Amino acid sequence: MRDDARDDARHDARHMDQALVLARRGLGNTWPNPAVGCVIIRDGVVVGRGWTQPGGRPHAEVMALAQAGAAARGATAYVTLEPCAHHGKTPPCAEALVRAGIACVVSALTDPDPRVAGRGHAILRAAGVEVREGLRADMARELQQGFLSRITRGRPMLTLKLANSFDGRIATASGESQWITGPEARRHSHMLRLIHDAVMVGGGTARADRPALNVRGFGPVRQPVRIVVSASDLPEMPAEDGDHGPLWQLSGPPEAVMAELGRRGLTRVFCEGGGELAASLLRAGLVDRLVGYTAGMALGADGRPSVAGLGLAHLADAPRFRLLETRRLGADVLHLWQRD
Amino acid sequence: MRDDARDDARHDARHMDQALVLARRGLGNTWPNPAVGCVIIRDGVVVGRGWTQPGGRPHAEVMALAQAGAAARGATAYVTLEPCAHHGKTPPCAEALVRAGIACVVSALTDPDPRVAGRGHAILRAAGVEVREGLRADMARELQQGFLSRITRGRPMLTLKLANSFDGRIATASGESQWITGPEARRHSHMLRLIHDAVMVGGGTARADRPALNVRGFGPVRQPVRIVVSASDLPEMPAEDGDHGPLWQLSGPPEAVMAELGRRGLTRVFCEGGGELAASLLRAGLVDRLVGYTAGMALGADGRPSVAGLGLAHLADAPRFRLLETRRLGADVLHLWQRD
Repeated sequence: MRDDARDDARHDARHMDQALVLARRGLGNTWPNPAVGCVIIRDGVVVGRGWTQPGGRPHAEVMALAQAGAAARGATAYVTLEPCAHHGKTPPCAEALVRAGIACVVSALTDPDPRVAGRGHAILRAAGVEVREGLRADMARELQQGFLSRITRGRPMLTLKLANSFDGRIATASGESQWITGPEARRHSHMLRLIHDAVMVGGGTARADRPALNVRGFGPVRQPVRIVVSASDLPEMPAEDGDHGPLWQLSGPPEAVMAELGRRGLTRVFCEGGGELAASLLRAGLVDRLVGYTAGMALGADGRPSVAGLGLAHLADAPRFRLLETRRLGADVLHLWQRD
Repeated sequence: MRDDARDDARHDARHMDQALVLARRGLGNTWPNPAVGCVIIRDGVVVGRGWTQPGGRPHAEVMALAQAGAAARGATAYVTLEPCAHHGKTPPCAEALVRAGIACVVSALTDPDPRVAGRGHAILRAAGVEVREGLRADMARELQQGFLSRITRGRPMLTLKLANSFDGRIATASGESQWITGPEARRHSHMLRLIHDAVMVGGGTARADRPALNVRGFGPVRQPVRIVVSASDLPEMPAEDGDHGPLWQLSGPPEAVMAELGRRGLTRVFCEGGGELAASLLRAGLVDRLVGYTAGMALGADGRPSVAGLGLAHLADAPRFRLLETRRLGADVLHLWQRD
């Protein structure tokens, strides 16, 4: 590689990393659309930055182009996902980039949405814009896992939270569960609610704990959808308002529930238990990520299990996860896992 | 503080830390005696280093004095525990230090053993040796926790290991348990066997798993005592030999078992389950340290629990532990806790 080329590659990666950081701001906030980031660079200087806005519009490219104005002419746009190609509520971003005079587009991923699927890149190329694809694809895939899951698997990405004693219990035999983990773990958990589209619990948990299922302690935010998976009557729960997202009750096999959530546009769902729902999701192989909070406390086998029976005949049949990270979180252990 | 004094304090701490590192070599190897470290410094130079030898003799001071020879005259000895004062199989270390012409002894802790209990320091002072006490006392107390426990509480220190799936299970319903955690966790666990005097399991585990309860993969070592807590017949287990420590079968309430182990001289016991024994030890408040290995696998509530029923009426009654450390260990999470 020539020195210049190596230098270019380094800059490319840095700009795309910045676009990925911007994209992250939209997580939990943009469904049914993907959370995308865009950075526009002219002569090595950032002239525009954008990310998908709450509700999914305006798109990241439109935000960044508006900031760049005339400086977009001849510039390079870094986007974490292929610009859209379809006329929806607004004209496609690929056309907006062409119109603004962007000379080069560097994208991390091709959009698997059948309405796009390479046609965004094609529009750009047809208009004489240089297109380079696949930069930081792995990171972009991880970041946009929820949207990709909805498009390619027809269901949202699912994160399962287990907050338990070190022997895997979420409550005493009498049902006492407040508090096993400390305030730092609870705040972390609210942060996770914030970056997911919806919070989901089973009917038993809804009836026993009457959880608020909202984000608290982060100022005014777009509240996640509240999902209760239950065929029975639910207790009185707060109506949708500024502090509480929409309330959806669903029931049926876990695969069907997840497919319905995908049809409704959700990309990232955060399941907070209880044990029966967790077990049914694990059994069905629907859990993509696992967040564990382990407290320094034993509750014993008469306490309530974090995961109900799985009916495994052999150890080799157990659902397995790969460790991403572990660290102290206040008095507790945080561990993050990803489905292999 | 004068600059000189600050300099002296810094050197003091460094020398004592070195003595603590040496002491650590004896852990699991010196019972019924404490694992002590000793460093002898003459004109700022290390002239002798010693630690308690396997079986508890010779003592650290004797080893260090032998290495120092004539250089001990006028030197300073750093010891992690007060030198002994009683005539046992050998003359007391306090007298040996005096005879060797040591000018100053810096010790981390007073020995609570009633045969010593300040008399070691008194012998030194009576002979005109300068004595300073209490340097790095906290670290020395932690390191010598097993010996201190035997003397002051009449029982060994107890470390409980829990190697389980992230939902707190140690086997499938059918009893399959090999392997939940990975080779790194198993090796770590053998290292812990090595630095404890004994490995303890319940009768159910002994019958189901026929565990070898020895240290493997660390070359020739002094094997830990094998303890099985059970009132019933045990399966055939290997006789004591170079690869297997003595085999002790005990039964009765956990407090009585631990007291008997203290009477027999044990200072550090490593309990590896199963769930019933773990629960009885936790219920009785006998667990001093907890070592958790958490694997990225769910086994479900029909799997075998790592801790059997505790009969807790309230969350506030749960045994609680303080997190010392958490980190990745191969594919698993290692977490270390200490009783509050």
